Amino acid sequence: MPTYENAKMIIDALERLEIESENVGMRPGNRPGRKSRNLPAIDAIRNCKGRIGVVDTTFSNIDTASPAIKEIKRLANKVEIRRYTVPGLRDVPVACKLLIEKEKCGIVLATGMVSRRGVEKQVENQAMQGIISVELLTNRHVITAFFDEHEAKDKAKLYGIVVDRVRKHAQNALKLLALPESLTDYAGLGLRQGRRDVGRIRM
Amino acid sequence: MPTYENAKMIIDALERLEIESENVGMRPGNRPGRKSRNLPAIDAIRNCKGRIGVVDTTFSNIDTASPAIKEIKRLANKVEIRRYTVPGLRDVPVACKLLIEKEKCGIVLATGMVSRRGVEKQVENQAMQGIISVELLTNRHVITAFFDEHEAKDKAKLYGIVVDRVRKHAQNALKLLALPESLTDYAGLGLRQGRRDVGRIRM
Amino acid sequence: MPTYENAKMIIDALERLEIESENVGMRPGNRPGRKSRNLPAIDAIRNCKGRIGVVDTTFSNIDTASPAIKEIKRLANKVEIRRYTVPGLRDVPVACKLLIEKEKCGIVLATGMVSRRGVEKQVENQAMQGIISVELLTNRHVITAFFDEHEAKDKAKLYGIVVDRVRKHAQNALKLLALPESLTDYAGLGLRQGRRDVGRIRM
Amino acid sequence: MPTYENAKMIIDALERLEIESENVGMRPGNRPGRKSRNLPAIDAIRNCKGRIGVVDTTFSNIDTASPAIKEIKRLANKVEIRRYTVPGLRDVPVACKLLIEKEKCGIVLATGMVSRRGVEKQVENQAMQGIISVELLTNRHVITAFFDEHEAKDKAKLYGIVVDRVRKHAQNALKLLALPESLTDYAGLGLRQGRRDVGRIRM
Amino acid sequence: MPTYENAKMIIDALERLEIESENVGMRPGNRPGRKSRNLPAIDAIRNCKGRIGVVDTTFSNIDTASPAIKEIKRLANKVEIRRYTVPGLRDVPVACKLLIEKEKCGIVLATGMVSRRGVEKQVENQAMQGIISVELLTNRHVITAFFDEHEAKDKAKLYGIVVDRVRKHAQNALKLLALPESLTDYAGLGLRQGRRDVGRIRM
Repeated sequence: MPTYENAKMIIDALERLEIESENVGMRPGNRPGRKSRNLPAIDAIRNCKGRIGVVDTTFSNIDTASPAIKEIKRLANKVEIRRYTVPGLRDVPVACKLLIEKEKCGIVLATGMVSRRGVEKQVENQAMQGIISVELLTNRHVITAFFDEHEAKDKAKLYGIVVDRVRKHAQNALKLLALPESLTDYAGLGLRQGRRDVGRIRM
Repeated sequence: MPTYENAKMIIDALERLEIESENVGMRPGNRPGRKSRNLPAIDAIRNCKGRIGVVDTTFSNIDTASPAIKEIKRLANKVEIRRYTVPGLRDVPVACKLLIEKEKCGIVLATGMVSRRGVEKQVENQAMQGIISVELLTNRHVITAFFDEHEAKDKAKLYGIVVDRVRKHAQNALKLLALPESLTDYAGLGLRQGRRDVGRIRM
Repeated sequence: MPTYENAKMIIDALERLEIESENVGMRPGNRPGRKSRNLPAIDAIRNCKGRIGVVDTTFSNIDTASPAIKEIKRLANKVEIRRYTVPGLRDVPVACKLLIEKEKCGIVLATGMVSRRGVEKQVENQAMQGIISVELLTNRHVITAFFDEHEAKDKAKLYGIVVDRVRKHAQNALKLLALPESLTDYAGLGLRQGRRDVGRIRM
Repeated sequence: MPTYENAKMIIDALERLEIESENVGMRPGNRPGRKSRNLPAIDAIRNCKGRIGVVDTTFSNIDTASPAIKEIKRLANKVEIRRYTVPGLRDVPVACKLLIEKEKCGIVLATGMVSRRGVEKQVENQAMQGIISVELLTNRHVITAFFDEHEAKDKAKLYGIVVDRVRKHAQNALKLLALPESLTDYAGLGLRQGRRDVGRIRM
Repeated sequence: MPTYENAKMIIDALERLEIESENVGMRPGNRPGRKSRNLPAIDAIRNCKGRIGVVDTTFSNIDTASPAIKEIKRLANKVEIRRYTVPGLRDVPVACKLLIEKEKCGIVLATGMVSRRGVEKQVENQAMQGIISVELLTNRHVITAFFDEHEAKDKAKLYGIVVDRVRKHAQNALKLLALPESLTDYAGLGLRQGRRDVGRIRM
């Protein structure tokens, strides 16, 4: 719990808290002791002047790019954003490569809707293999925040999952862009995007 | 609904409308407010002087290239078209690469018939992975408009699906060729090719 | 029906006919109007001085290369042939690449026996993905004429399927080598190799 | 059984023994005659001044990097370690490549949690194919120590499996880094990581 | 049947025979007329001064490299052998590449144990795709002699299968190294490794 005394510090603390706890419609995960460790990453993100690409599709029935962009702007208002919308998931890999090579993005957040049922799960596989190839050809990370329209039957719940996942992966992308070593503080913690963290098995 | 007063403008408006609404044998999708946003893309397409490749196969039992070519000519009569027919789907990736590298096409529309049943779904997978590799090797988009002969039992319905899909993807290809950022207007709208759009989930 | 008046021309016409109709043990497919369109391709093939590679395996229980070579010699006696036999299907991709890069083949016809049942279908998949990579690395077509030993229980029927497929794909390879645009005459006609053509759905 | 006479030598011998026998919560495998053959490898590892990368994820619910790092430090205290934590398994390949190319690691140990059930097994496949591509692009080994959260229902048992696998693969990585030919002493012995060795079939 | 008159020639003939007939614990396959055709290959192999790589694993519960090396030495005592042992199948592709690029091997024989059941069949697939990539990157053959531990329930039978497969593929590797065109004599003969040849379907 934040104990700072003046308003400015409280706002700061709340903002810092938000990067972890603000998952839409979900209870905060059990990540003990990370708030304090997280401060250098938040400062690095706030001061980061890099460029991030955001890819989305016309196929998705949820606007996946907007919550990503909103989250990036909230946490890193000096970071430049390049958005690229393509028809479907199979068009995503080359869009990522163009964002990295032509638009000089330091990292890309690729969003989209998939189906993991039947033969359609091949599409996600093709896209992911293409995205990994892009990473190896460019030496840049492409963070993927895909959702399966069957993850939840309820539309509101599905929407919540998507926004949570996209925002958390936007945070991951910012951390890797601004201070890659900061993720080691969260290693093996069973973090999840779109659902509650599962926590760490300790012995 | 168009409200222009003179004939010329009405014709213009209808043409503009067509790029969205003219899907063969289907009811128009629910895409509110896109007509007006779409105008810059239509102008860019009409004035575009790029070159587009169209790949089709002798294996397909529907002529997939002709509706694509017809649509391209209708919307973008300054765009040059290069057609390349190959035996089957597995021959498509290298045909796309040759169209881009030897024929200097700025984008390629790859069409063909697949089977997504049993072991044959492997063929589509091989072709798609090859096509994604072509995109990454050339930094060009290859838009795929494949159909599965089992999508509809009725031949007329299957034909309608194919023509709708090919024409809509021809439009996608033209947008990416002429004004790539224009697709962002359609982001997350649940657009479909070959069937009705599913619309967007909003919260 | 050929109506030429003198013997020489009849022989010519029959030869030209053969490239289409001579499928072993099967009835001719329904390809209306193609005989006349096909003449430039036949002339181009007859005068073609390119080099074609033929790959086969010791694993196959049918000699797949011989009918291919016989067909190439019959139709294109100026074309040079390079044959390369490897142990199995997984050795085919690099053999194709060596034929293109070391033996300067303009196109390769890869033949072999596969199993599309159980886990063994992986082998065909590996070979095909390798072959598509060869095509993208060399910008040359590799036409594949594989058969599955379970396509027919009767050995004579299986043999007929294989010879038909290999010969038709030898024709495809010759067309792509001598006059690539000639395949557009057959686009969307539902052509098959190893079985009867399915024809085109027209609306 | 060690028979050295003075304390120093006994400690040495025990340390040498440890590299083989210390698997957490498991009985030693049946690897006859390997202790003596192993000595040159242990010396080479102890004197090795190379650099090793360790990749782990925030997704895993077990800290996989720490036992790896502990094992490396115990056996090879002159080896430098570079740790890289990424969100999930799909982010691992490019992390490996960056460790090799930017951080000049001679070898990488990639750890992480996977699911080998249902469609999720695709994720491991994508990561592994990407990792193999990294190896081929860099001519460096990437040793993978993944675990499936369903390998054991009991958390303590799962933890034991993971630590055993990670430590043994850390040993493999050190051997390949310090003295690659040393693994030939263990060829065909049915070695396992995370469970007991199965031994060799002899005739 | 050999008809040479003096002892030296009989010994030679028997040796030449061996390359075909000596399959462990199995009856000779039906390969009519190949003995005479095989002589140039045997001479070429005997005089070959190339270098061959042999890859094996610590995971396998059978020593797969030793019968390969024994067979190579028996038939081609001027050929140099480079052995490389890696932990598991996924480590094989880069080992092959290192043998070709660093150790200048003209060909590689990759051996190992796989499971073709359940999700584990993915591992063989990953390894094979990596191996095919190595072939395409280096323009060298990598002959694979893998076995599935479930091919035979009886350990002695499994051992016999493995030794037969490894030795026959060692012969294939030597033929491709010394006289690649010699395999055409065996084209389409239904040759098998680890089991009896199935023979050719003739019409």
